Amino acid sequence: MQPHSHSTTPPVPVLRREADLGRRLRAVRQVTEALAAPLSAEDCALQSMPDASPVKWHLAHTTWFLETFVMVPYLPGYAIFDPSFRTLFNSYYVGIGDRHPRPERGLVSRPDLATVRSYRMHVDAAIGALLTAPLPAGVAELIELGIQHEQQHQELILTDVKHLLSRNPSRPVYDPRWPLREVAPQSLRWHPFARGLVVVGHDGDGFGFDNEGPAHRVYLEPFELASRPVTHGEFAAFIEDGGYRRPDLWLSLGWDTMVARGWQAPLYWEHPRRGWRTFTLHGMVEIDPHTPVCHISYFEADAYARWAGARLPTEFEWEHAATGCAIRGNLQENGALHPLPASNATDGAGPAQMFGDVWEWTRSDYAPYPGYRAAGGAIGEYNGKFMSGQYVLRGGSCATPAAHIRASYRNFFAPDARWQFSGIRLARDVPGSA
Amino acid sequence: MQPHSHSTTPPVPVLRREADLGRRLRAVRQVTEALAAPLSAEDCALQSMPDASPVKWHLAHTTWFLETFVMVPYLPGYAIFDPSFRTLFNSYYVGIGDRHPRPERGLVSRPDLATVRSYRMHVDAAIGALLTAPLPAGVAELIELGIQHEQQHQELILTDVKHLLSRNPSRPVYDPRWPLREVAPQSLRWHPFARGLVVVGHDGDGFGFDNEGPAHRVYLEPFELASRPVTHGEFAAFIEDGGYRRPDLWLSLGWDTMVARGWQAPLYWEHPRRGWRTFTLHGMVEIDPHTPVCHISYFEADAYARWAGARLPTEFEWEHAATGCAIRGNLQENGALHPLPASNATDGAGPAQMFGDVWEWTRSDYAPYPGYRAAGGAIGEYNGKFMSGQYVLRGGSCATPAAHIRASYRNFFAPDARWQFSGIRLARDVPGSA
Amino acid sequence: MQPHSHSTTPPVPVLRREADLGRRLRAVRQVTEALAAPLSAEDCALQSMPDASPVKWHLAHTTWFLETFVMVPYLPGYAIFDPSFRTLFNSYYVGIGDRHPRPERGLVSRPDLATVRSYRMHVDAAIGALLTAPLPAGVAELIELGIQHEQQHQELILTDVKHLLSRNPSRPVYDPRWPLREVAPQSLRWHPFARGLVVVGHDGDGFGFDNEGPAHRVYLEPFELASRPVTHGEFAAFIEDGGYRRPDLWLSLGWDTMVARGWQAPLYWEHPRRGWRTFTLHGMVEIDPHTPVCHISYFEADAYARWAGARLPTEFEWEHAATGCAIRGNLQENGALHPLPASNATDGAGPAQMFGDVWEWTRSDYAPYPGYRAAGGAIGEYNGKFMSGQYVLRGGSCATPAAHIRASYRNFFAPDARWQFSGIRLARDVPGSA
Amino acid sequence: MQPHSHSTTPPVPVLRREADLGRRLRAVRQVTEALAAPLSAEDCALQSMPDASPVKWHLAHTTWFLETFVMVPYLPGYAIFDPSFRTLFNSYYVGIGDRHPRPERGLVSRPDLATVRSYRMHVDAAIGALLTAPLPAGVAELIELGIQHEQQHQELILTDVKHLLSRNPSRPVYDPRWPLREVAPQSLRWHPFARGLVVVGHDGDGFGFDNEGPAHRVYLEPFELASRPVTHGEFAAFIEDGGYRRPDLWLSLGWDTMVARGWQAPLYWEHPRRGWRTFTLHGMVEIDPHTPVCHISYFEADAYARWAGARLPTEFEWEHAATGCAIRGNLQENGALHPLPASNATDGAGPAQMFGDVWEWTRSDYAPYPGYRAAGGAIGEYNGKFMSGQYVLRGGSCATPAAHIRASYRNFFAPDARWQFSGIRLARDVPGSA
Repeated sequence: MQPHSHSTTPPVPVLRREADLGRRLRAVRQVTEALAAPLSAEDCALQSMPDASPVKWHLAHTTWFLETFVMVPYLPGYAIFDPSFRTLFNSYYVGIGDRHPRPERGLVSRPDLATVRSYRMHVDAAIGALLTAPLPAGVAELIELGIQHEQQHQELILTDVKHLLSRNPSRPVYDPRWPLREVAPQSLRWHPFARGLVVVGHDGDGFGFDNEGPAHRVYLEPFELASRPVTHGEFAAFIEDGGYRRPDLWLSLGWDTMVARGWQAPLYWEHPRRGWRTFTLHGMVEIDPHTPVCHISYFEADAYARWAGARLPTEFEWEHAATGCAIRGNLQENGALHPLPASNATDGAGPAQMFGDVWEWTRSDYAPYPGYRAAGGAIGEYNGKFMSGQYVLRGGSCATPAAHIRASYRNFFAPDARWQFSGIRLARDVPGSA
Repeated sequence: MQPHSHSTTPPVPVLRREADLGRRLRAVRQVTEALAAPLSAEDCALQSMPDASPVKWHLAHTTWFLETFVMVPYLPGYAIFDPSFRTLFNSYYVGIGDRHPRPERGLVSRPDLATVRSYRMHVDAAIGALLTAPLPAGVAELIELGIQHEQQHQELILTDVKHLLSRNPSRPVYDPRWPLREVAPQSLRWHPFARGLVVVGHDGDGFGFDNEGPAHRVYLEPFELASRPVTHGEFAAFIEDGGYRRPDLWLSLGWDTMVARGWQAPLYWEHPRRGWRTFTLHGMVEIDPHTPVCHISYFEADAYARWAGARLPTEFEWEHAATGCAIRGNLQENGALHPLPASNATDGAGPAQMFGDVWEWTRSDYAPYPGYRAAGGAIGEYNGKFMSGQYVLRGGSCATPAAHIRASYRNFFAPDARWQFSGIRLARDVPGSA
Repeated sequence: MQPHSHSTTPPVPVLRREADLGRRLRAVRQVTEALAAPLSAEDCALQSMPDASPVKWHLAHTTWFLETFVMVPYLPGYAIFDPSFRTLFNSYYVGIGDRHPRPERGLVSRPDLATVRSYRMHVDAAIGALLTAPLPAGVAELIELGIQHEQQHQELILTDVKHLLSRNPSRPVYDPRWPLREVAPQSLRWHPFARGLVVVGHDGDGFGFDNEGPAHRVYLEPFELASRPVTHGEFAAFIEDGGYRRPDLWLSLGWDTMVARGWQAPLYWEHPRRGWRTFTLHGMVEIDPHTPVCHISYFEADAYARWAGARLPTEFEWEHAATGCAIRGNLQENGALHPLPASNATDGAGPAQMFGDVWEWTRSDYAPYPGYRAAGGAIGEYNGKFMSGQYVLRGGSCATPAAHIRASYRNFFAPDARWQFSGIRLARDVPGSA
Repeated sequence: MQPHSHSTTPPVPVLRREADLGRRLRAVRQVTEALAAPLSAEDCALQSMPDASPVKWHLAHTTWFLETFVMVPYLPGYAIFDPSFRTLFNSYYVGIGDRHPRPERGLVSRPDLATVRSYRMHVDAAIGALLTAPLPAGVAELIELGIQHEQQHQELILTDVKHLLSRNPSRPVYDPRWPLREVAPQSLRWHPFARGLVVVGHDGDGFGFDNEGPAHRVYLEPFELASRPVTHGEFAAFIEDGGYRRPDLWLSLGWDTMVARGWQAPLYWEHPRRGWRTFTLHGMVEIDPHTPVCHISYFEADAYARWAGARLPTEFEWEHAATGCAIRGNLQENGALHPLPASNATDGAGPAQMFGDVWEWTRSDYAPYPGYRAAGGAIGEYNGKFMSGQYVLRGGSCATPAAHIRASYRNFFAPDARWQFSGIRLARDVPGSA
């Protein structure tokens, strides 16, 4: 078994690697700015709830990450752009020092958006300077982490601004192009997987977050996995059948949460009497019955699965099933920014749509793998300290960059979170197999 | 006794009056915009707490008020600027229809600031058109109300943006000019007033809000009123003497509120160990001991008065004492935007600084006067429905326009409100007089 | 004007007075115990909400009051029953020391009820001993205060246990006797009162709380007062007319409170579809349309009055109207423990049912009278520190001892309180009089 | 693999089994009553927090369980004791119907304790009658479940009354006998376990809850387990070293919870300055450094483990290590009702004190085993619906009946729960083994 390790990098020539790093970082930084381009200064400044952050904050925080973990320690003579940013744009790194409180990110009108753009340029220029010379040991890995980190925040820019615009009574449009085309509906089929000992976790080839390793063995009982995610139409049938009024379908905590919040449908659904409509980054639309349902909590996913006579997969079942699948699908680069219907084409013999469209809730809580150990220092706070009270989601969504997702990738959210593009892939036990 | 009535206007020529109305309205509208001029689009979009509103909202709501109560009913062919604004910028007029929830005013990035400025121009042009012809009955009074309403929101623009900027860790400056000059401290003296039946309330001469009338008689016991407001230095002595740690000085509800909120000084005070500093519209400054203390709640005002062996005046004692005073002082036009020290000059024989500097808490709850009756229709919601749970403040502040204040003016806030320029004027019973 | 003062007692013979004090105190103490007699140890131990206290706590606290303010300071050699009671049964006297938190009075299973009864006997015996000798100066006044204090808690025992029993799904009965008899309904008439300067407040003859004084002059505009309280039937018509769905009828704070709490009828009303029923100390009954409505908040009283084209009286209007009325009516000794219909008999020329049945909300906030000064020491906390955020109620209820009520008596509760026997007496301005 | 199944009972003679069931049930019922014997009616009626229930409620609910699931469906002619109890004492079985709200269990003074005791006798007599004849299929399993259920509530009676008494400022004593004796401290050693595939879960021999099965295979990496639980003295060293002030030691959610609740030590610890004391069922005592620490949350356990350079075990590591251990230790029958120090005697070659003393937090969330399926009907709500947001604890405590615990037993609580006898057993990875 080969555990994941940043130190066992392959022996590629250093210069080529750095050139590639620089090129990739620039490209990723430009994508971030392109995502914010359609937005006004006001769109970028507001915070619609504590879970979400202003776009301006995302623009600044990703820059702060590079400044704090790369520029300050490794670029001699680097001039800090503004010392107050050290606190203002620190998300949760206690090891770095004080953090501006998360629920107050929307109370900061200054620096304004133009200043944050200058901050980005300042740090980008410094990175350019750093990359003109051979990098000290470990710095390439930190820049790689900065790239991956910025990609994560690209997805959050999209989900957070979607939430913000949804709170405006006029339901403004982020991008007026509507991506859906007519398709032939795909019926749901089941793919069987046999029992056995399998290896899961990141194998050390290419980038992986620390929480994806070490790779290790798990024993799986036989199971079946659905050929595609649950659709809007299937979920509407669950609602129609009283899904939100039957406590026997719900986890106890899920029922209490649903009642307390007054949920009666997924987030962004409106107007049940005149036919369900939902808010998208392209404005209000009628739900399309063949598209994967999204913006549902773990609790709703679990209740739906019970109603359907199935269950959610474990993260290891999911990863085992996904291991052979090509990483393609309706991802951020596709530009749809909304889950799309399954096409006729399948991913070979396995389940379709494993990557992209919607993050798929698993029944696995977000816990450390055997032998997991967080890195030392503040950077070790990246993942490990969040390993309680959250569930793992797999596969990426229509807002995830293609270069960011892989079979071993573990996303995680609290079971009541609904503002991500989160959906359902069903699994079930094989009858009589135990 | 002559009750207040809008209908008993003096017999001035109609045309002159309308010309004057138009001139005054234009001037007031321009002041509003000048107050917003130093602010960025982001400064104008954010909401720092449910009590405060974004500047952009104030700019739009004052315009909505004129559009809704004047343009729509009285200008034939008036084109509504945007139908969604009817709900979006309705503050609390249930009779008009739905209101966008107050705590969510900071979630609306669109319309942006530029659009709101267009909205203002659109309505201003319509008012210009309306004023070219003789006004229908009652319209001049509504425009006058629109002027007074906009002046109220000018003060709120200043207090709300002060609160917003205070929540930014860098404590940004609204106006860098610092208004304080060296002065000779004024010791506190007491002005006696005899017992007797006095008339209070608006006498119908000039504009008055409905809550200022009808004028009526009240019987006052003998009392004394302080010659000037309590100063920052005097309040610091109260803190130093354990004022925030002695429950015997506080109303029970005040003590509970103070403990629950963790108050240890007035709002905006910081860093007790290195000498008190306070946030102003001109940035962080050391407290000046000779300036009137402000940003204190009713509960703190009441506790201070008890500590000082005095009490707060009733609103009728205050009004009786102020009736002879000239309306001058440190008001908005002065540009200081901060309370200033008492000067040598007194206001004749009476107490000084009755107008301007700080609103003065009275011990009177905000209740209807005998015979009070709110106007019919939505406009009747202006004042009357707020007559519970609030205390009356008198005299205006450094943020109040001079043309907006008078002896009978009744401002009102909940006893825990601290973000207004609210301060203390002491009163006391005359020993042995009862 | 003769202000109220404890020190200007009339020159009655000391011995007779002390004998009478002892006899009255014993009688009042026995009434308290009789009120608790139908209740089990569990009934006496539970606390149904922070506003209410366990009966056991009332039994102990009234005893603690006598022990703390009379026995300990004035009976040489008095043996404290249990030192831990000093904190445990201190309600809100900060000057005495720590208080067990009010919301946790229902977490104290020990001392049990039997021990609290022993505590009462211990203190009663000590009072007997104290009264065998001439009392030191001021002690008779303290014992008188102890009597009045215990009478206040008798009413609270009844309202608090009513609330507790109402929270039990089986709606248990405190007293199975049902007091209502057939009566002839009384139509509502209006009693006029002329304008003028009147004296209000306690005149020093007999006991009065400090908050009832000093007596002082107030000027009243002409008004009319209803001949009897609003009835259950009249209030049901308000509900039927959409009273709880029309924001124009409500104070803004009242509307928000009503919506937030989900109020749709007075406290204890149930089952609107099958005809309103209400919980009483005699169990669930159908509402009797001719009985005074009770268990309503200030906000509901105010909204009802507005719906009826009237208003609530000020406390001074009420007191002026009540001054000539005999203190008789449906009070605690009557045993009904529920408001009763108006009988044919009127109280002379004035309004009927001014005393007893229901406490009548006034529109006056609970504020100090001119010249009011709380007593020194802990006993000064009895009333004064509660003078904010509450409204005055007048006249006593069916749970008030007859010897405890008078025209100048000021009861006070927050405007959202509903568990007292609180009702409505309408007033109105005289048209055209201003 | 042999899955757990209630239906594959061994072929024992029916009559003997029923006699034994009846004998065991009577014995368990008597233990419950003995646990309540030292308590007054008031002690049994109060509820100190929503998580805890009144002792009276436990006495009634365990009886309700037998009445609802056994008597009503299976004893012809059974007379229901009181129909209102169906709702009043239903804990969480939605399939049975309405439930009295959990946080309001302490608002029910009636039925009183005497009536609940009559209820117990009534149902016990009916069970006696039922057991005189051969039982219908499935009933023996339901009675067995009733026995196990009552044993669970015995532990809750002890932990809930401990919490209630702790809220009384006089800190009353449940049982004055103090169980601790002098012992020789045991140093902590590590027991190694090799990697491999192991079987976990209940093997179907004897009673097991549905959540303990099906038995299934899991793959374990090599690990070491501590020889005994963490002691009070060791935990005091963690506090002394700033354990509650170092965010790097805590899960993010744990840190936020600890700060929000103001935790500075385990539940029930007091007076740090004069040496830690803790509340026990025997009153306040100084902490004994050699006894296992208890009343700590998952978050504190996790932080302690990180501080100690270790981690919590998974539930499978724990179960694997415990499989060979004899079920003996400081359990309820021991009467200590407090964790005791490790004795010299070890449990053979394995870790000591695996059973009794304190429940040991594992890092495993409470999730269904592969192939888990809840029973049909209301009884299926027993366990499955709680499988989110909780962590598994293993091994039983000083309040657990010996006949109730086993290696496969899964207890579960939310990570912030502290009122159970919950403690820490450390585990660690084997260096270099991955």
